[in-house]
Amino acid sequence: MKLSEHTIHCRIDKSDRFRLADHDPAETCGLDIEKKEAKDLLADDVKRLSDLQERLYAEDRWSVLLIFQAMDAAGKDSAIKHVMSGVNPQGCQVHAFKAPSAQELDHDFLWRTTMALPERGRIGIFNRSYYEEVLVVRVHSKILQGQKLPKGLVTDRIWHERYESIRDFERHMARNGTLILKFFLNVSKEEQRQRFLDRIEEPAKRWKFSMGDVAERELWDRYMEAYEEMIRHTSTAEAPWHVIAADNKWFTRLMVARTIVNALDRLDPKFPKVEGAALDELKKAREALLAEEKSDARRAKNQR
Amino acid sequence: MKLSEHTIHCRIDKSDRFRLADHDPAETCGLDIEKKEAKDLLADDVKRLSDLQERLYAEDRWSVLLIFQAMDAAGKDSAIKHVMSGVNPQGCQVHAFKAPSAQELDHDFLWRTTMALPERGRIGIFNRSYYEEVLVVRVHSKILQGQKLPKGLVTDRIWHERYESIRDFERHMARNGTLILKFFLNVSKEEQRQRFLDRIEEPAKRWKFSMGDVAERELWDRYMEAYEEMIRHTSTAEAPWHVIAADNKWFTRLMVARTIVNALDRLDPKFPKVEGAALDELKKAREALLAEEKSDARRAKNQR
Repeated sequence: MKLSEHTIHCRIDKSDRFRLADHDPAETCGLDIEKKEAKDLLADDVKRLSDLQERLYAEDRWSVLLIFQAMDAAGKDSAIKHVMSGVNPQGCQVHAFKAPSAQELDHDFLWRTTMALPERGRIGIFNRSYYEEVLVVRVHSKILQGQKLPKGLVTDRIWHERYESIRDFERHMARNGTLILKFFLNVSKEEQRQRFLDRIEEPAKRWKFSMGDVAERELWDRYMEAYEEMIRHTSTAEAPWHVIAADNKWFTRLMVARTIVNALDRLDPKFPKVEGAALDELKKAREALLAEEKSDARRAKNQR
Repeated sequence: MKLSEHTIHCRIDKSDRFRLADHDPAETCGLDIEKKEAKDLLADDVKRLSDLQERLYAEDRWSVLLIFQAMDAAGKDSAIKHVMSGVNPQGCQVHAFKAPSAQELDHDFLWRTTMALPERGRIGIFNRSYYEEVLVVRVHSKILQGQKLPKGLVTDRIWHERYESIRDFERHMARNGTLILKFFLNVSKEEQRQRFLDRIEEPAKRWKFSMGDVAERELWDRYMEAYEEMIRHTSTAEAPWHVIAADNKWFTRLMVARTIVNALDRLDPKFPKVEGAALDELKKAREALLAEEKSDARRAKNQR
């Protein structure tokens, strides 16, 4: 598959027909990171992203929310690092969501992430998100039991209710000026095994590994079902999921960068124009600043 | 109209047919605050509310959100004060929302009130709320222009989009354990005039009056249209509006108290039961505490 075709394929629009099996984690579109083309493509996109973010910040109308979800070791952290490192951190914030605190559990399941939403003009990145509420919470029913919900409200409709709440919430955000892009980094079970082995073997990576990761891996099939259902029910025109092949990290980064750049290009943020009365004000300010220089020069001359 | 009938009349369920004209601001259901019956009714309800709140807090599952909206001088502050003063403030918080800050305007219009939502087991009171976004913002188009929304998103559909966002949001909250009750205190234009005059004449009330209040009063009819449309589009089974006759403050308080008590009664929060293993633990704790007393007594005896 060609890169441009693949970009369309990985954006999920016809979500009711979505099947994870139609997406190959090892896809690279015939590109090779050892050759110049792939490297140049990524470098170009990172540069364009930095320019677009400057305009987004100056225009100060839209906010951008990037959501990353994936199995462990799929490359979320490294994709965020490599794609976003060119961007001015003043206009970009990353939030990583772990298990909710007692205070957070005292609220509805969208509350804690709402606090962290990006302001106008900024890019906000969620490394995991409220989608955990239909992933890990779905796979481990004990977590749901610990959420302090009133008894009558926990029914077999709860996952569909959560999908609906999320769709409603994202539509609300989109209407109020948030561009939402969601990324599922699609890693294969075999590639995860390799990366876990690497983490154990390389001292610099050991801190990233915990025994819990292996326990979760045993629930692989149930997680895949939860991801598939999540994407089916929460991919919308306002907030599409992108299924990114994740067995090759360089390709993951390329696809993530390309998707963000294309979406920001369509948004086309602009530096605010200064015209009319505001431009006259600017001209006056310029004259005043220039006049200061002359009077300073005169004073200096008189002092000599 | 009898009190029990009136309680049903003021809860808006068939919202598409709602007309403000069907609600008399001067209604008192034939009661008279000078007579014992009305006073006793209010005192009873305040006492029951305090008991119900204790159980709500102990059960720690549901949260309760009370929203108050009204024209100036309709009696929001005094209703909150008189109805809620019997309640333990540890389980009850009031948030008054004024014009949004620059930081708040950098987010969607539901963001700032979301921060202030009540935790499980608590009663949260919004003195004004996100409903201002379809009231004062609708009456004064300049405010909307100042909200920094991307241009293409401000269309003539915006009010219906906001109604939908609010309905969706409230359904989400209800499903996740928040009981929502909304009160519109329905004061007449003539009664507002009298109360404004009182505020100007009584030194202890002068601080409550500002010239802006009179300017808003001139837009009375447009406000009434905005309230009527808001109630039509946002009264739902999960989060009904209650239109409370507000020309007599004592009657407003009685109706507000009664509505909250009835709703909490239906919720029927319960003190958590201690049974099984937890009860055995309690018994052991009791024995240990009693044994301490004995050994203290023994030691005291030996020292004598």
